Amino acid sequence: MSARVLIVDDLFPNVKLLETKLALEYFDTVAAMNGPDAIAICEKGLCDIVLLDVMMPGMDGFEVCRILKNNPLTAHLPVVMVTALDQPSDRLKGLDAGADDFLTKPIDDTALFSRVRSLVRLKAVTDELRSRALASREFGMGDPLALATAETGLNASLLLVEDRRGSAERMAAALGQYHTVTVEADPQAAIHVAAEGNFDLVLVSLDLEGFDGLRLCSQLRSLERTRQVPLIMVAEAHDRARIVRGLDFGVHDYLLRPVDRNELVARVRTQIRRKRFSEVLRSAVQASMEMAVTDGLTGLHNRRYLDNHLAGLFADPRLRERPVAGLILDIDHFKAINDTYGHEAGDEVLRTFADRVRLHTRTIDIVARYGGEEVVILLPDAGLAEAYAIAERIRERIEGTPFQVHRDTRSVAVTVSIGVANRRPEDVGPGEMLKRADLALYRAKASGRNRVEAQAA
Amino acid sequence: MSARVLIVDDLFPNVKLLETKLALEYFDTVAAMNGPDAIAICEKGLCDIVLLDVMMPGMDGFEVCRILKNNPLTAHLPVVMVTALDQPSDRLKGLDAGADDFLTKPIDDTALFSRVRSLVRLKAVTDELRSRALASREFGMGDPLALATAETGLNASLLLVEDRRGSAERMAAALGQYHTVTVEADPQAAIHVAAEGNFDLVLVSLDLEGFDGLRLCSQLRSLERTRQVPLIMVAEAHDRARIVRGLDFGVHDYLLRPVDRNELVARVRTQIRRKRFSEVLRSAVQASMEMAVTDGLTGLHNRRYLDNHLAGLFADPRLRERPVAGLILDIDHFKAINDTYGHEAGDEVLRTFADRVRLHTRTIDIVARYGGEEVVILLPDAGLAEAYAIAERIRERIEGTPFQVHRDTRSVAVTVSIGVANRRPEDVGPGEMLKRADLALYRAKASGRNRVEAQAA
Ligand SMILES: [Mg+2]
Ligand SMILES: [Mg+2]
Repeated sequence: MSARVLIVDDLFPNVKLLETKLALEYFDTVAAMNGPDAIAICEKGLCDIVLLDVMMPGMDGFEVCRILKNNPLTAHLPVVMVTALDQPSDRLKGLDAGADDFLTKPIDDTALFSRVRSLVRLKAVTDELRSRALASREFGMGDPLALATAETGLNASLLLVEDRRGSAERMAAALGQYHTVTVEADPQAAIHVAAEGNFDLVLVSLDLEGFDGLRLCSQLRSLERTRQVPLIMVAEAHDRARIVRGLDFGVHDYLLRPVDRNELVARVRTQIRRKRFSEVLRSAVQASMEMAVTDGLTGLHNRRYLDNHLAGLFADPRLRERPVAGLILDIDHFKAINDTYGHEAGDEVLRTFADRVRLHTRTIDIVARYGGEEVVILLPDAGLAEAYAIAERIRERIEGTPFQVHRDTRSVAVTVSIGVANRRPEDVGPGEMLKRADLALYRAKASGRNRVEAQAA
Repeated sequence: MSARVLIVDDLFPNVKLLETKLALEYFDTVAAMNGPDAIAICEKGLCDIVLLDVMMPGMDGFEVCRILKNNPLTAHLPVVMVTALDQPSDRLKGLDAGADDFLTKPIDDTALFSRVRSLVRLKAVTDELRSRALASREFGMGDPLALATAETGLNASLLLVEDRRGSAERMAAALGQYHTVTVEADPQAAIHVAAEGNFDLVLVSLDLEGFDGLRLCSQLRSLERTRQVPLIMVAEAHDRARIVRGLDFGVHDYLLRPVDRNELVARVRTQIRRKRFSEVLRSAVQASMEMAVTDGLTGLHNRRYLDNHLAGLFADPRLRERPVAGLILDIDHFKAINDTYGHEAGDEVLRTFADRVRLHTRTIDIVARYGGEEVVILLPDAGLAEAYAIAERIRERIEGTPFQVHRDTRSVAVTVSIGVANRRPEDVGPGEMLKRADLALYRAKASGRNRVEAQAA
């Protein structure tokens, strides 16, 4: 994936060198020579990845990284820190600041390009999700990005696939302080364990006895159930070729042996944060779509959902042939409840009413608030007699127990009238069945309310 | 990106050969030995890409491809046809059936892997979008996948970057039958033309005089404004290395010179369909999120949106300091309108009322239906006097012209009462301003309606 790489370095020759290397690999570049400029470029959305010098006068690279990773607008940008001295303490400081990786000057080209490509590809996959989440923020649906950025990356469930006992124990001990760790020594079993368990991350040794750990990684990346789970390879430094291969097909990160326990903890945490970041965005988008078809007061489906669903029952030829019944429920004298006990009590009655109706319908039934005090229920595969019986049961359960209002300090007797109809072969659209149910409802009301009436035969 | 590759071939040795090759590159494979089995696997979502033999007894590869590409459940899967005879007529037949590419037996490994990787990566980017759109379908929001699949890929706006005059003319003539084509000979100018114009696809010659066309491609893939636009490279057959490079960084497809006009038309069409497929899904997700904050009857924002927005006005420290005014509008004697003219007329009045209010508010104002016949308007940066003037103007425009109902056959005199308030420094939350506006509204009603009243000083 081509991408815009932001090069941040206080020394002009360093910037130039990286620009030249990256341009030859068909990356676009943009440069900043200090931290504040870099942050401004990232906030404006002008780059896809940041190569960040550690040693800069004024704001150093660690500080820049920390700011980027804690800002909802920039937290999704991969950051690779570039350091002249490969001190373990520096690496750790960078990883703790949220950096995605480290490269040492002079920069090895293979390492640079494989890392940048891998990070850019992973970012491209979540960019779409991020745009939708940004839109949901514009629609005033809260701020999923801020929520996602606040994620700490702790208390995850990890799977470690490692057959060297000592190594497995050391890693499990280090990670066990912050997460729950399952160790699996058998790579064949691991694929099933991973598919069955609900892991947040899988670490895979590339030095398994008689098994190519990379193959396990590729299987995990391919399987529906595990493809979203971040993967970290654990490998010997001389195994560079396979590491690059893994990064190329979508493994998220790697650790070199001997594994530094702090680096292990930091890299796992970064991946967990990244995964949860996506999950928060995904559920924000999902939630805002669900809201579109949900009645805010009762949590029932809304009329928009009902109309769409009804249209589907007639548009889909397979559904068209199957029986369906419809109920219209109308709370009796609802206006009097509102006038006597107040609007809030009226809302309480509606909520309780919705809860009771839900209790007496099946999962496959569609229950929707149709208007003020009207609820419509669609019963797939139900005949008229069955629908009548269900309506009668609901009517009894409404009448049977008074409704509590004013925070359970008062109780109100509530009854409901229900009209029942079912689809007829001659019906050409969804309106006719509901019209018959509505006429039946009218008869129920006219005959004294608290009654169920079915359509005329 | 690792992926599950479905190999479809009626000959077992062919299947085995491809399985072995792909496994060595860490792809997961699944096999089918006839068309119906292949389709079933695709419908179950068990693969990410299809390698499809052309010659098979029973249902041939063309037919399988056509079925997959016309089924909303499988249309997003890339299909690469594999043929023993490289007949132009075969290629065309496959491309017309919707195939994404062609490979000739014996299969060249570089071509195979670069194509499969490129298609799988492009798919990964839209998978998330597709999942969201599938969810929107489950929520009963129509079927965006069916809509997206029905896209024909015609009438697009294309940019052709080519400095060979004859070649440009021939290609423009072939494409001009179905699309609008802009030709740009200067690659430096092309990047600006592409960024300014709203093109559906860009074709780039890799044989430009003194300019690397691949660089133009990478720039187009990097720029915010053009990164979603499909790219097709036009290259000499001996330029295989650069073609692979381009596919690797995200170019969507390529054509070899001399360009076959039918193949040109077919490949462009496939890319346009793919792009519009994503666009339809994107706007379906967007629309369903918008619906969550929109009142179905009036098209105004709904109460959920208003509540979220009001909370933001107090939560955000920068917004907290700025003035804001709130209006509550309540249609006078609305119940009487409903009772006299019927519910549908009441709905018409509400819609017209909303339209007029919208006409007299600014884009930055928030207009939301608050309850049955109540509308709330938030005026950012407005003081009390300004808000009062706006309210008075709205009141006049409602009173000034009677409302048409019953399909313009009757007209109804409608008036509105409005309460006005603004934020005070001592307000700690959004409720207080609205409460003062509500009290003012009450006074307006009590003093005879068709009036504007502001909060007490
Ligand atoms: Mg420096
Ligand atoms: Mg065959």
